[in-house]
Amino acid sequence: MEEIQFNHRTAVQVRFNDVDGLGHVNNTTIQEYFDLGRMYYLNEVFGDTVFKGDETVIVVNINTDFFSPVYLKDDLEVETAIVAIGTKSLKMVQQVVCKQTKSVKASCKSVMVGFNKRTEESLELLPEWRDAISQWEKRSY
Amino acid sequence: MEEIQFNHRTAVQVRFNDVDGLGHVNNTTIQEYFDLGRMYYLNEVFGDTVFKGDETVIVVNINTDFFSPVYLKDDLEVETAIVAIGTKSLKMVQQVVCKQTKSVKASCKSVMVGFNKRTEESLELLPEWRDAISQWEKRSY
Amino acid sequence: MEEIQFNHRTAVQVRFNDVDGLGHVNNTTIQEYFDLGRMYYLNEVFGDTVFKGDETVIVVNINTDFFSPVYLKDDLEVETAIVAIGTKSLKMVQQVVCKQTKSVKASCKSVMVGFNKRTEESLELLPEWRDAISQWEKRSY
Amino acid sequence: MEEIQFNHRTAVQVRFNDVDGLGHVNNTTIQEYFDLGRMYYLNEVFGDTVFKGDETVIVVNINTDFFSPVYLKDDLEVETAIVAIGTKSLKMVQQVVCKQTKSVKASCKSVMVGFNKRTEESLELLPEWRDAISQWEKRSY
Repeated sequence: MEEIQFNHRTAVQVRFNDVDGLGHVNNTTIQEYFDLGRMYYLNEVFGDTVFKGDETVIVVNINTDFFSPVYLKDDLEVETAIVAIGTKSLKMVQQVVCKQTKSVKASCKSVMVGFNKRTEESLELLPEWRDAISQWEKRSY
Repeated sequence: MEEIQFNHRTAVQVRFNDVDGLGHVNNTTIQEYFDLGRMYYLNEVFGDTVFKGDETVIVVNINTDFFSPVYLKDDLEVETAIVAIGTKSLKMVQQVVCKQTKSVKASCKSVMVGFNKRTEESLELLPEWRDAISQWEKRSY
Repeated sequence: MEEIQFNHRTAVQVRFNDVDGLGHVNNTTIQEYFDLGRMYYLNEVFGDTVFKGDETVIVVNINTDFFSPVYLKDDLEVETAIVAIGTKSLKMVQQVVCKQTKSVKASCKSVMVGFNKRTEESLELLPEWRDAISQWEKRSY
Repeated sequence: MEEIQFNHRTAVQVRFNDVDGLGHVNNTTIQEYFDLGRMYYLNEVFGDTVFKGDETVIVVNINTDFFSPVYLKDDLEVETAIVAIGTKSLKMVQQVVCKQTKSVKASCKSVMVGFNKRTEESLELLPEWRDAISQWEKRSY
């Protein structure tokens, strides 16, 4: 993956039933961790506006690499950055990092698009979203 | 538990990540199986009316006994019956049964009350619900 | 419920997919929160010994009251106490509390028994477990 | 996606709590459905040998497109095929299809590698796995 500056981190609370029969946190649960980081990121950058009105963003593609097993006792955080913004979509990159070992356990690239919850139709990204992200990430896209 | 006639059965599709780090289906997932049986039961008895309008029933108490571990390969079904109906609440009894061994893995008594989804207030049980249940269970309450 | 002194609290990290189609945290997920509090409690009281060897405790009964809906934005913690210890079993009482409103959203009484993970047989409670709990709870049983 | 012949289908049992606060089956749950199809596929092709010994396959990459929302009442199946086999890894392609509308709700490409559960090390794909897959898919790789 290209060198990315992560400005947002979310600590993850691991639950007992996150672990599957192989003794590892299940891959689908790792995806829940990425969603958790995404939710905190969007809440922080957009200040609640994304989840309150009809206009929101939804995920249309995820591409996740699982590098090494995650265990119940691991102290984890999700790092999140938005790396590109187009007219209708934006690209997010995330990592699940074990704080004890500094190792990256899994990484996820995702594509999100604007979405109207009421009409269930896609939507161009709002200019204020672009501004909020630029300001948060301290870069222009 | 008193002798109960179960007239409703739902086969359960076990998922890989239902199993936890002890190698058993996690107790909270067993509760999902009871919910699954409950949903199928209510859909069948009420013919979709419960989940479409504002008036529905919600669970206010569950009391579950876990008798023996459930494994990924177990062939399971949930047996469900409504055993009592009052003015505002009804009592459901359920069992998770392993079909290969005929053993009862877990049993759950639950109490449900009428609930209006829009106002988020409780609600007396509708007479047509009582009738539908009596007809399904072939008994009067 | 009788007046209980809770000496243990665990903050809960709510996940986006904890919420179900009714817009509330699903009841089975509330049960995951109780499990979370239980795990932190046992880890703290027993200092890792419970989950490392073959001898552990497992839940054989839960009895949960759901008092009011839990939402994504609620700031939650689980309060946990052990209220009785017998030869083979112990009784735990827990509450999910919303910190913003101080309201008790749900409460759970559970019964746990000693269990050997390797032989999958039940087990008398170890004297050192009783001592550790008495010390933590600052009471004798 | 290239034209793929799917020879394996798994019906999906949707659970009430699969649906999230947006009223759709949550994306991480869609990933559970792909895992479900994967488990049934591997069990059928390898006849239980994959999950019983120390030698198994694990997922190292998933790439999932979410095309349209999935609802509680949708009648779903997962279609699964293995499209390529190398020395150490294989490629699987899957689709979640709504049987009522024949529409593809989501598709997932995944990469799996051989893995020894005991040593937690990677492993070359066993020749008998390759044979079993070729036979099942009625093609050579």
